Formats: sequence, C-alpha cells, structure tokens
Amino acid sequence: MSELMKAAVFEGHERIVLEERPIPACGPTDAIVKVTLTTICGTDVHIWREEYPVERGRIVGHEPVGVIHELGGAVTGYEVGERVLVGAITPCGSCFFCQSHNESQCSGHEDRWEMIGGWRLGNSIDGVQAEYFRVPYAQANLAKIPDDMSDERCVLLADIASTGISAAETANVQIGQSVAVFAQGPIGLCATAGARLRGAALIIGVDGIERRLHLSRQMGADEVIDYTQEDPVAAIKRLTGGRGVDVAIEALGTQPTFEAALEATRPGGIVSSLGVYGGKLEVPVEAFVYGIGDKRILTTLCPGGKERMRKLMELVRHEKLDLSPLITHHFALEDIEEAYDLFGNQRDGVVKIALSPNGHDAAVSGDLRVSTGARAG
Amino acid sequence: MSELMKAAVFEGHERIVLEERPIPACGPTDAIVKVTLTTICGTDVHIWREEYPVERGRIVGHEPVGVIHELGGAVTGYEVGERVLVGAITPCGSCFFCQSHNESQCSGHEDRWEMIGGWRLGNSIDGVQAEYFRVPYAQANLAKIPDDMSDERCVLLADIASTGISAAETANVQIGQSVAVFAQGPIGLCATAGARLRGAALIIGVDGIERRLHLSRQMGADEVIDYTQEDPVAAIKRLTGGRGVDVAIEALGTQPTFEAALEATRPGGIVSSLGVYGGKLEVPVEAFVYGIGDKRILTTLCPGGKERMRKLMELVRHEKLDLSPLITHHFALEDIEEAYDLFGNQRDGVVKIALSPNGHDAAVSGDLRVSTGARAG
Amino acid sequence: MSELMKAAVFEGHERIVLEERPIPACGPTDAIVKVTLTTICGTDVHIWREEYPVERGRIVGHEPVGVIHELGGAVTGYEVGERVLVGAITPCGSCFFCQSHNESQCSGHEDRWEMIGGWRLGNSIDGVQAEYFRVPYAQANLAKIPDDMSDERCVLLADIASTGISAAETANVQIGQSVAVFAQGPIGLCATAGARLRGAALIIGVDGIERRLHLSRQMGADEVIDYTQEDPVAAIKRLTGGRGVDVAIEALGTQPTFEAALEATRPGGIVSSLGVYGGKLEVPVEAFVYGIGDKRILTTLCPGGKERMRKLMELVRHEKLDLSPLITHHFALEDIEEAYDLFGNQRDGVVKIALSPNGHDAAVSGDLRVSTGARAG
Amino acid sequence: MSELMKAAVFEGHERIVLEERPIPACGPTDAIVKVTLTTICGTDVHIWREEYPVERGRIVGHEPVGVIHELGGAVTGYEVGERVLVGAITPCGSCFFCQSHNESQCSGHEDRWEMIGGWRLGNSIDGVQAEYFRVPYAQANLAKIPDDMSDERCVLLADIASTGISAAETANVQIGQSVAVFAQGPIGLCATAGARLRGAALIIGVDGIERRLHLSRQMGADEVIDYTQEDPVAAIKRLTGGRGVDVAIEALGTQPTFEAALEATRPGGIVSSLGVYGGKLEVPVEAFVYGIGDKRILTTLCPGGKERMRKLMELVRHEKLDLSPLITHHFALEDIEEAYDLFGNQRDGVVKIALSPNGHDAAVSGDLRVSTGARAG
Repeated sequence: MSELMKAAVFEGHERIVLEERPIPACGPTDAIVKVTLTTICGTDVHIWREEYPVERGRIVGHEPVGVIHELGGAVTGYEVGERVLVGAITPCGSCFFCQSHNESQCSGHEDRWEMIGGWRLGNSIDGVQAEYFRVPYAQANLAKIPDDMSDERCVLLADIASTGISAAETANVQIGQSVAVFAQGPIGLCATAGARLRGAALIIGVDGIERRLHLSRQMGADEVIDYTQEDPVAAIKRLTGGRGVDVAIEALGTQPTFEAALEATRPGGIVSSLGVYGGKLEVPVEAFVYGIGDKRILTTLCPGGKERMRKLMELVRHEKLDLSPLITHHFALEDIEEAYDLFGNQRDGVVKIALSPNGHDAAVSGDLRVSTGARAG
Repeated sequence: MSELMKAAVFEGHERIVLEERPIPACGPTDAIVKVTLTTICGTDVHIWREEYPVERGRIVGHEPVGVIHELGGAVTGYEVGERVLVGAITPCGSCFFCQSHNESQCSGHEDRWEMIGGWRLGNSIDGVQAEYFRVPYAQANLAKIPDDMSDERCVLLADIASTGISAAETANVQIGQSVAVFAQGPIGLCATAGARLRGAALIIGVDGIERRLHLSRQMGADEVIDYTQEDPVAAIKRLTGGRGVDVAIEALGTQPTFEAALEATRPGGIVSSLGVYGGKLEVPVEAFVYGIGDKRILTTLCPGGKERMRKLMELVRHEKLDLSPLITHHFALEDIEEAYDLFGNQRDGVVKIALSPNGHDAAVSGDLRVSTGARAG
Repeated sequence: MSELMKAAVFEGHERIVLEERPIPACGPTDAIVKVTLTTICGTDVHIWREEYPVERGRIVGHEPVGVIHELGGAVTGYEVGERVLVGAITPCGSCFFCQSHNESQCSGHEDRWEMIGGWRLGNSIDGVQAEYFRVPYAQANLAKIPDDMSDERCVLLADIASTGISAAETANVQIGQSVAVFAQGPIGLCATAGARLRGAALIIGVDGIERRLHLSRQMGADEVIDYTQEDPVAAIKRLTGGRGVDVAIEALGTQPTFEAALEATRPGGIVSSLGVYGGKLEVPVEAFVYGIGDKRILTTLCPGGKERMRKLMELVRHEKLDLSPLITHHFALEDIEEAYDLFGNQRDGVVKIALSPNGHDAAVSGDLRVSTGARAG
Repeated sequence: MSELMKAAVFEGHERIVLEERPIPACGPTDAIVKVTLTTICGTDVHIWREEYPVERGRIVGHEPVGVIHELGGAVTGYEVGERVLVGAITPCGSCFFCQSHNESQCSGHEDRWEMIGGWRLGNSIDGVQAEYFRVPYAQANLAKIPDDMSDERCVLLADIASTGISAAETANVQIGQSVAVFAQGPIGLCATAGARLRGAALIIGVDGIERRLHLSRQMGADEVIDYTQEDPVAAIKRLTGGRGVDVAIEALGTQPTFEAALEATRPGGIVSSLGVYGGKLEVPVEAFVYGIGDKRILTTLCPGGKERMRKLMELVRHEKLDLSPLITHHFALEDIEEAYDLFGNQRDGVVKIALSPNGHDAAVSGDLRVSTGARAG
C-alpha cells in the first residue's frame, strides 16, 4: 500500500481543502517530485471560484520547485535528489503539436486534437500543491536548478514569468519599439519585464492600483498610466506623438482592455494577448481598421518544457530578471484554505504567495521568513 | 490651358459617370501615365454604393496598366513611352510606415498617422479609370512591363492578385500545411492561388456558387466545399482528420465567414483575414480558445510598390500564375456606367471586367475582343 | 535466443556485405519495424568509400518504409502491422536541441553536445538496409502511411526530399523570387522541387549532365544551365538582368559550387547550403562583399520526425510532389553488393535505387517490377 | 559663386587634410546640413591608409549631427534650423533593394546592382567631416533630434551603434540565449550592448585589451575573456557547459576571430558577422560541421534611414543605451590631421573621438569640454 501525503484538492465552490492522498506512482516515462516550494496562480482562483472547470477531487497547482523523489525506467540523465523546476506546461515532445512547435497545445496523442492540452498539472492530471506530484513526460520537463539558485528565485518562472515574457516574444518586439502593457497583475508585470528584455525603448504600464504601477516601474515601465485618472488610449497616443504603440499587450482578459489595446496600437501594429476571455469578445471595427490596417492579434499560452525553464533561470542567474518583489506572502501548505482566501480576495496587497509543503524545508532553502498569513517584507 | 481627358467620376449613390477633366499636372516626383487597361474592383463598388466614403468628384479606380506620358524632374531611370504597371498601393518609401515595412499604411508625412494611407489612387487622390492619371512617388511605383507580356496578363496584379496572395504570405504558410479559403470571389480565388504558391499540401475552397467552386479548383483548391450544401467547419474538420486547418483565410469580410474561419482552425493555427468588416465583429470565444489557444488573427491590406509588381509579373511570365480565367468581360471606358451596373450587381456570371480607355489600343495589345457589355471568351 | 535476419553491413573499404544478424530487441520507447522498401543514399556511398566514418560492423541505411513488427511498452497510439515511414533523422523530442527546434542536431542526452546527433540510423546505431530495424524514440518517429500510398511513392521522402526541400525553407524563399540550384543530383533535384513549392518565379538548375538537366526541368526548373557549356555565374547574371539570384542553393559540397553559389547571389541574398564539405572551404571575399553585403550562408541537415514525414506524404497525396522519375533501378537486398557497385559508380544513368528486403512483398505493394540490376521503366 | 567651407579631404596615403570647398548645392530631393558634431570611424582609417578605395579629393566621414541649412523643393515636413541626425547609410526608399528591405545595399537606380550602395556619405559622394554636407534622399534620411538630447548623446548612433546592435538583431537573439562577442572595439562594444538589449542571458566579451574588457562589462558583458590569457573557444565552452554559445558575433574581420566564432558556436547556432574581411577567408570545415550542423553565417552592413535613427535615439532617451563612455577624446575640425594620427594609431587609450566643425558651437550644445587632443573625462 502506497504512502500518504497532504494535498490541496478542489472540492467545490471556493473549497480547495487539504486532504490525504497516496503519493503518486511512477510510470516508465514519469518522475515523482517532492515539492519544496510552489505558489497559487490566478487560474487556480478561477478553479476555486468554479469559473474554470476541473473535476472535483483534482489536486490543484501547476508551479512547482522540488527534488526528484523517483524516476521512471525510461528517463535518463537525472538522479534522485536533484533539485528541479517544472513548467506549468509539460509537453510530450512527440505529438503533432510539439513537432509543429506549438508545444503548449500538446495533445500527447496521435489522433486526438485537444486545446490547451499541454497544461496538464492541476488541470487534466493531479497538480503540485501537495507534498509530491507526478511529472508526465519527465525527460522533456525536468529542469535542473543550479546550486546557487534558491527556490524563491525560480518558483515564479514556471508560469507567470514564462507567460508574461512570451507576450513580447510572440509579438517579436524589436529594439527601439514602443510597447504598452494593459494590466499590471503578476502576468502583466512579467510582460513588462519581457518588453524590457526585448529592448523596447518606451514601455508603458497601465493599471488602476498605485502599488502595481509602482511595481510596473520596477519591472521596466518607463511611463505608467493610472486608468482611473486618465483615458489610457489618449495617454498612449500622447506619449507616442499621436501614432499609437507598436505593440500592445493585453494581460487581463476583459472587453475594455482588449478594446483599448487595439485602439492604442498603430496601423501595422500588434496586439499580443495573454488574457483569458470568458463571455463575449467584440472587435471594435474602427480600431481594427475594418480588417485592413495590417494589425495582428496574437495569443499565447504559457511556453513550457525544461529548456524554457533553463533559459529563464539563466536570466535570473545573470541578474536580468528579478521577480522577488512579486512574492509578498508566504504560507505553509497546511494553511492552504487561508492562502486561497487571501489571494482569491486580493487582500493585504498580495501579489504572489509562496507556498511551502513543509515550513521547515523552505526556511532552510529560502531567504524569506515562512509565516502563516504574515506579509513578507 | 491643360488638355482634357475622359474620366469615371464618383458623383453620388450608384452614380459613377463619365466626365471631362484636365489631364493631371506632373510634379517633380510624379509621373503621368496614359492608361491602356484597367478594371473595376469590389472596393469601387463599395464607393459606388456609398458604403465606403470618398469625396464626390473623385476619379475612381486603382488598378492601372499604361504607358508613361510625362515624368517629373526628380524621377530617374524611366522614359516616356515605356509600358508600366502601377500597384493599387503607392508607398512613398520614406515615411515611418514605409521604413517600418508597413508600406500599405504609408502616411507620406513626417507627423501624420493615417490608416490605409498607402491607398491613394481613387481614394485620397484621383484614380485610374480615366485616360490619364498621376502616379505619386513615381520612383517607387512604376513597374516596367516586359515586352512579351500583354496588358491583360498583368492588369489583375495591381490589386487582387497582390492582396489575395498576401494572405498566405502573411500567414507564413509552410510547405505541406493545410489551408482553407473562405469565399471564392476574385480576392479569394487569388488567395487560393497564393496558398498553392506557398506549397500548401491541402487547399480547401469554400463558396456557395458552383461557378466559383469550379474556378477555385482551377486556381489550386484540392477540395471545394459548397456551404449551401454542408457545414464548412464540419467538412474542414472531416478533411483534416478532426484537427482543423493550419491556416484559414477570410476573403469576404462578414461575421459568419470570420467565425467559421476561426472555428475551422486548429489550436496554434492562423486566421489570415483579407475581408473589409463593417458594423460589428465578434470573436467566438470558444473557437478563440478563450484567448489561450495560441491562435493568431492577421490582417493584410494589399502590398504595393514596383518591386511587388515586378515579382508578380515574374510569376505570370514563368507560368506560375494565370489569372486570365478571371477576366470574364470587357468594356470600353465610355460604357463605364453599364460596366458598374453589371459588375455591381454581379450579373452574367461576371468575375472581373477589363476596362479600356481606348477600345482601339486595347484591341492592339490584347488577345481578347473588346466589346460593349459582351461576355468575353 | 533471438531470430536472425539479413542485413547490409559495413565491413571496410567498398565492402558493404550481406550478413546474418539478430532481429533487434525492442526497448520501452522503441519500435521494431519490418522493412518493406528502402534505398541507397549518397551518404551511404561515402561510408562505403570510407569517406565518412562509421564503425565496422554497423548495419547501414537510413531511409525506411515498413510495417510495425513490435512496439515498446511506453509507445502509444500505434498497432503492430501498421505501415510506417521513418525519417532519416530520428529526434528524441526532449533534449536541448529538440526543444530549441534544432531537432536534426538532437543529442538525446542532458549533458552531451553532439553534432548531427539526430542522424542515428545507419550511423550511430544500426540502420535499415536489413529485414528489420529498431526505431529509437518511436513515439516521435513513426509516421503512418495512408492506405492509398504505395511504398515507392514515399520511400524518397525519408531523406532526399526532406533535405532537398529544406534548402528553400531555410532560405525562406518568397513568392516571386529567383533561385538557382547548383547540382542536380537527387538532393539538388528535390531542392529544385522545393524552390517551386515555395513559389519562386524563376528557378535555374545547374548541372553538367544532360539527363539531370532534363530531370531538373521536370522537377520545376524554368531554366537550366549546363556548366560544361557556359559559365553558370555569368548565365545566372544574364537571366536576372545582371543582379544575381535572391537565393542560391548549393547541393553538392565542393569549393567550386560553393563559390559559384556565392557569386551568383545578389547583395542581400542567401546561399542555402546542403552539401557536405570535406577538406578546405574558402569564402571568396569579393563575392562575400568583404563581409558587408548582407549576404547569408545557411546550412541545413535533413529535417526529421513523424510530422515532417506526414507533411511530405500529404504533398505527394495531393500531387504536389512526384519523385517517381527519380527511382531508376530496383534491387533485392540480396543483391546489395551489386547495388552499391552500380550506385556508387553512377553507372547506367542511375538516379535512385529502390531496395527490397523481400522481392515478393515489394512486388505486391509496388507498381514497379522488382528485378536484379534491371533498369526500371 | 558659392560660399566656401572647410572640409577633411582624402588626398593620399595617411593624408586626410583640411581644404576649402564650396558649400554643396541642394537638389530637389536633397537637404544641406550644417554639421555640429561628427566622429571618425574605423572605416575612415581604412581610407586614410588606402586599405579601402575612395577617389582622391573625396570629403570623408559618415556620422553627422547637424542643423538643416537648406531643403530641396520636393522635401516636406522639415524646416531650416531643425536639428537632425543622419545615418551613415542613406537609402533611397524606392529601388529594388529598398523595396526588398535590404536598404543598406540600396542602389538608388532601376538597373544598376551595386554592392554596399547605401553607403554614400564619404564613400561614393562627399561626406560629413566638413562644415556642411549634402543629404541625398533627404525625405528618407533626416531624423529630427528631440530637444532634450545633446549632440554627444546621438553622434555615435549614426554608424557604430546601428551596426553593432544589428548583429544581435540579424541573429534574432532570443531572450535567455548565450552570446559571445569577438573583439570589443567600438563596434564590438555596441554589439555587446545589442545582445543585452535583445535579452541574452549570458553575454561574453572577448578582447585582449584590459580597458576594452572593462568597457565590455559596462556595455553588458556578464563574462569577459582576455584572449591573451586563455583560449577563448575553450573558455566559452567552459562557460556554456561544453555546448558553445547560441550566437557568436564577429566584430573585427580577421581569420582567427571568424574561426573562433564558428568554433565557439553550438550546432544549430549562428555566427553574426560585422567585420570587413580582406585577403582570404577560410571556413574551418570541422567547426562548420562539414556544412550539415545547421549553422548559419550572417552578415550585416549598418542599417540606415531616419526611422532607424529615431528608434536608436529613443533607446538613448529612455536610458537603455548609453554610449558616452565610448567618447574618449574631442577635437576641432581644424585639427583633423592630429585627430586621424591619434585615432589611426590608437594612441592614448582612444575609443571614439568627437569632432566639432566649430569648437564654439559644440561647447554650447555639449556637456564635454572641446579641446585639441586632450583626453576627455
């Protein structure tokens, strides 16, 4: 009989609760990882609120740092005990989508055409807000962590950094261009960092919360616009001599931000969209130049795979990306309900939460005090 | 006092009439071209119907073949009497948009940010359904016609071929991919040819008119779908083993075709849109995979400039593009009202009309009988 | 004790001989395929001549069509008995190179950086000129063959079609461009087809053998140059109005063809190189414009993986690629020595040889008579 | 009779001397600019040494900041008195090369196919080390300087920043990649800045001069290698875990640096070359992986045009690029011979020289003391 572990399980509306579950079994192409640090994502809150459907009983969470606990027989080049980062997206490397370089849409099958298939952890299979989790397609998804890098410095790379930065990559931002980023939540802040990393000359962060606009400057914005104080489209036109930005990044998933992004973009420009849109989405045809303005609307799900994770860790190592200002709170896994309550309701100025399955371990590896609901820093 | 010429002038709702106008004057960077063959575009019909606004008194038309009549002092490398093709889009080559390689959005000014600015002829300046017209930025826009190429073989390159083919180029169609083209009017038929030219393996033409589906196969479609007989999205899914096409081209500009294009596209796929959208445009969020399906919506206005025209003529010369099946009718400029009536109301199986300012000249250069309203071939 | 099979084994200079070997064992991520048709590649001749080093005792060959004989436990979505095409390059899908989209350079390991690592069959592991062979990373490399496609129609896709076509893809040939292809051997002929598939307007085939120039026209060349009759660079300049081609493809691997390719290319143009260069390679600095002509020299090893094979088969199915004129001879595996002798010495007008491990099977599946050394067609 | 001005004129081996010349006349598409600041380029030194051929009597120099003195009749949107930056490359915007987006190879003619044609100033027409110069194709080449930007902050953008940064752009450096830059002269230092601007994670600067390695770190290098102390290829392999860099930039134009760049690059990697190669250039075939390592050798001449200049100024304005550490000396135009002597012989730790046609003016606009041969800072 398999050993038991603690895990955060979705059980219904605003109910993600701690349960005991068997430590997962390891298939030939899998790895089992003991989690040392994870976090809660905005998408987890959608699950918590039943806005995004996962089946009840599913262990949630998709942003894990940990230690290899067990390795499948077909996995080579790794050893038990090595520290690894696993991306939120775990591509198989072999299917139509992976070989077409749309790894995030990985179906993992020959004849099945799934959407968003690469997002497995905490979605189509059990996730990582637990003591242990199973990594599918482990050969493609275990990224070794350099010894000199703490868990805290890489935990946000699994999803929000990879997603946020991808907006500028997908838009193929060029050195010297202008970029506006709509919404400065965790993803938008990383998108701001991505625009900076791509060499944009003018980066404009848009949000309505003072604290986020402050973080926006910290992550790379040259100008910030508080949309509660002025019309962001007019402000962007003003900052770009009337022309509009080369690239607008949408990082929220609402009709108003989508519209504003399209309006703020010059003819021939790009809207790079990260948001998840529910309900209806309308294209303002005038801002779309009636379909003949050479505008482009691009969408990106989080890029995954171990090489993506390695590259992002290299940025952190060489001090080109510092996400530490985004971790505002630490919780132990035991306090998962409290963590969801605080994060889901955006209380206490929370940006991102670090979640430790084992308070003791995290205290050893990290440089931040682990507490229960206490605000870091 | 300047000499007079005949010209087709927009004078109000369904009124494009023959008038006498002065032959245009030639500025230092201009050329005056004597038109030998032109055609009527779907966009001209929008003007005729007052669905697209141009000022009254404007000479219409933007697809000219002709002979250089006069050259501005700053234009070099050309001589009066040379035969030239001029694209519908006449970029300046110097402004922000041209230097950013969005030539179709050319503003021609330092500090003005126009949309669709590169479309001047028959829009913001006088057009080519006339005996003579002025070519702005002539150095960038006069494409010499090889001696062995008749007017009829190149007149459709100025707009519909350039526009239609651009859909596959913008979508970066890869060898072996699958492409569906929604609507098989003149632009859609050229988009079908474009998909073939890019090496798509499976090309699917969608329309509701038998004759157009026949032309679709002629231009390169491997499969055709009559949407009056079966649901095109279901048919496309069936033809692609359930997955959807890599690229869907929208060539009509309506909500249903836009939606179907998005639905027919696989995760990670591209909608390459050529249509002009009026009214409202809604994005079906499920087909859009809620914004996280790595889908892309790309729009393209017609590429212009003399080098674009040269490349397209090279395709025709080397027998890789034959648009002659699309010219179904010939008219003389004198019969312009009759021509708009027939084309605007899509009578007599018309696809494209060839329009000769001078019946005599055209008969010399061409291989098709010039008549008044008679169906060619 | 494992069963025995016949296999073509490299045993020394101009000695590839038939031996008995155990049918290979199947690991969890492998498949064992029973070969129904294969061919001899120019690279195999380099091995035969000891110009390219493989260890003695290695079974050679890397272009297999066959039937699944056994499947590893971790491979899903396939069944024994299915017909499959396997590319010459068998990427793992998981390593640094695969995740960086350089699949041909696949190392298959975490910390090993091999060159050309994706070429395993008949190189670093046993190959396919045998009754059976082992497919490594089977999940990524088994491409199912449609029922309506004969072995003969797809056997050349595994390497020469994939390699040849890739030259135009790597060069990103645009619709309407001009392309010259230096050498019209099997790879060069496929490169010519690739230029046509990408929509080049003017394709120029260069070779010194009448028969190959004839095939060159068949595969898509608009013009052919017999370099024994005229200087190819001068001829290309003449055909391009003095400017040179946009893209020159080198498909031989010699100093003279490399130089001519660089010289024949316009400023800002691309040399897309497929040849294998031994000895010294010099860049003619004047043709290289001293390094400041915006020229690019690109190299490509054969792209592999099942999706590549599927796309190429789609081209064949939809009659956009027909390589049947290239198979000039058929041999049975028993006659392997005779086959190498004929192909290695380029006798009897040979272009490509089809090689059947079992004469009887091939006769059933194919439309060409299997004989011993008899010239097909 | 036209007024006279002072100008630096090439008159023979190591003889660039001050002469009196007429202020140039202004054609309809030209502008005459009064120079306020310029600099000496390594290419000027090649001219001075007769290593690069220009005709005797040519005014040299191609990196101007100035004030519009006169405008041609066809130039719009500018006024006399406006401050402008003009790039070293002055594309026409209309020819085959410009419309093919190879503006640096601009021929400016219909039927002439020049190499490096876009470099006119101080090469094929008179240059800018003078009190006044003529800007050809002024509409495309006058970049207005924001009021808040001094001459010193933008003079190095005209050539070395544009050239250096282009290496990373041409190589399409991706966020998180590794880049080595061979040689840390002015161009190489800007290439280092370019790699940083594109988001490379690990940037390695290679040179043999202590001071340059120090500047290399300042411009963005994470690691520097003194090639006089250790083998740079071995060091790069060590720093990249044995694999080699994703991109190596060659910024010198010698056989050893070219070879090292190729050797230091991983399979599938890119050599982005900026150097000017004289004599012979050999490709080390093993490092080239015999032509089948998926390696790419890319070359770039300096990108020009007013929009390029605008984008680079935006980088400076938003403090993403600071080239001020590179200007080590100031000279007045009167002291041009002394300036060439110092710069040409690389004395006194010189990196770049600022050259003022009028000592008085420069003192007004700039923040650095203008002196005769005195070391700045």
